[in-house]
Amino acid sequence: MAETKKTTIVLFSGDYDKAMAAYIIANGAAAYDHEVTIFHTFWGLNALRKPEKQSIAKGKLEAMFGKMMPRGADRMGLSNMNFLGIGPKLIKKVMKKHNAMPLPELIDMAREQDVRLIGCTMTMDLLGLDEKELRDDIEYAGVAAYLGEASDGNVNLFI
Amino acid sequence: MAETKKTTIVLFSGDYDKAMAAYIIANGAAAYDHEVTIFHTFWGLNALRKPEKQSIAKGKLEAMFGKMMPRGADRMGLSNMNFLGIGPKLIKKVMKKHNAMPLPELIDMAREQDVRLIGCTMTMDLLGLDEKELRDDIEYAGVAAYLGEASDGNVNLFI
Amino acid sequence: MAETKKTTIVLFSGDYDKAMAAYIIANGAAAYDHEVTIFHTFWGLNALRKPEKQSIAKGKLEAMFGKMMPRGADRMGLSNMNFLGIGPKLIKKVMKKHNAMPLPELIDMAREQDVRLIGCTMTMDLLGLDEKELRDDIEYAGVAAYLGEASDGNVNLFI
Repeated sequence: MAETKKTTIVLFSGDYDKAMAAYIIANGAAAYDHEVTIFHTFWGLNALRKPEKQSIAKGKLEAMFGKMMPRGADRMGLSNMNFLGIGPKLIKKVMKKHNAMPLPELIDMAREQDVRLIGCTMTMDLLGLDEKELRDDIEYAGVAAYLGEASDGNVNLFI
Repeated sequence: MAETKKTTIVLFSGDYDKAMAAYIIANGAAAYDHEVTIFHTFWGLNALRKPEKQSIAKGKLEAMFGKMMPRGADRMGLSNMNFLGIGPKLIKKVMKKHNAMPLPELIDMAREQDVRLIGCTMTMDLLGLDEKELRDDIEYAGVAAYLGEASDGNVNLFI
Repeated sequence: MAETKKTTIVLFSGDYDKAMAAYIIANGAAAYDHEVTIFHTFWGLNALRKPEKQSIAKGKLEAMFGKMMPRGADRMGLSNMNFLGIGPKLIKKVMKKHNAMPLPELIDMAREQDVRLIGCTMTMDLLGLDEKELRDDIEYAGVAAYLGEASDGNVNLFI
């Protein structure tokens, strides 16, 4: 019997298009029976934020970061041709036309396929993000857990 | 006999300098007898565009994207110090001085070394890019083909 | 006895946050007894620059690049929310509050853990960077050396 293959992705970027690439690869790998893990660190954590404002007591700096960063996948900008937010609208329009799945649905699909979504606790602290602000169906870990997965990984990507 | 090693690169970025890094690694790996594949997705597809305008019937949005994206490797910007297009000119000047190969030649060299260049069909649809607009010596595939290669890969990079 | 695992990172980016991610992974991997190598290419070389101005005879273009690029890890900007240099100040403030190690200390720690820091000689030429401008405790090599390490690597990342 063939050994289960492993794909691990560090999602560092908070760009809609890069996160899309990450989740398309993740969903593809899960469809081919890979064990797939996405570690969300720095701006990549924003893909996991709940769209609704959460009332959480925060320090000044943390509250400011929280306000400036997008609340959830649907509000993220593009890495290229963002044009002050028009770019994402145009891309989403074309995606609809071509029946491509929008990012929030790609994330839901990943969870349905048992892709493990992990929030990096250290960068959550730095950006002042609280567990209550992120999706309820994710796990939390640090760099040690990432390395444990990645060192047996067949496909390891930093996006 | 040693097994053939495999290098696969996802070229997501449309930046001249990042594409240069991708192609330098690809050419190096090919020189060491790796089987090398570069999957061009999103903005990375622009590196494969023919410099000449192609007359293709397109939807409005797709025509607009086509106009705004650089036609070919030589017209791409830098990820850093781009300065509205002056940066690439300066870098190319320094590259000439140091006899470094410009990106279009790095791409030709990769093909001569049998590096497989693949255009991601799904993102071509999104950005409205037609096969006629891209180099004639490339292949087309989707995420499944990428994963097939990458899961046996020794070096897998996302650039 | 288990074989030593290998982690190799190409640090292409000159952003403070991306370099932080690279060095946190590198230090983590070294703590788990991986052999770790970071290849600094293009803007990633700036993380290795000495903060003090070095007097080196340079061509005009090279002198200009040298002036425009940050001298050392502490002067690098953020990939996101940089706000003309205010972003890094805010992040460093939050890092201090959470006792997170600033980038220059992460680099020192990597060296203490015998992480190999390599400057890519080809891109040093392009950006006009001289060995005298970079940390004294690093090595120099090209793409061949990178591929030699990476093709046996368990974790290979491009950051």
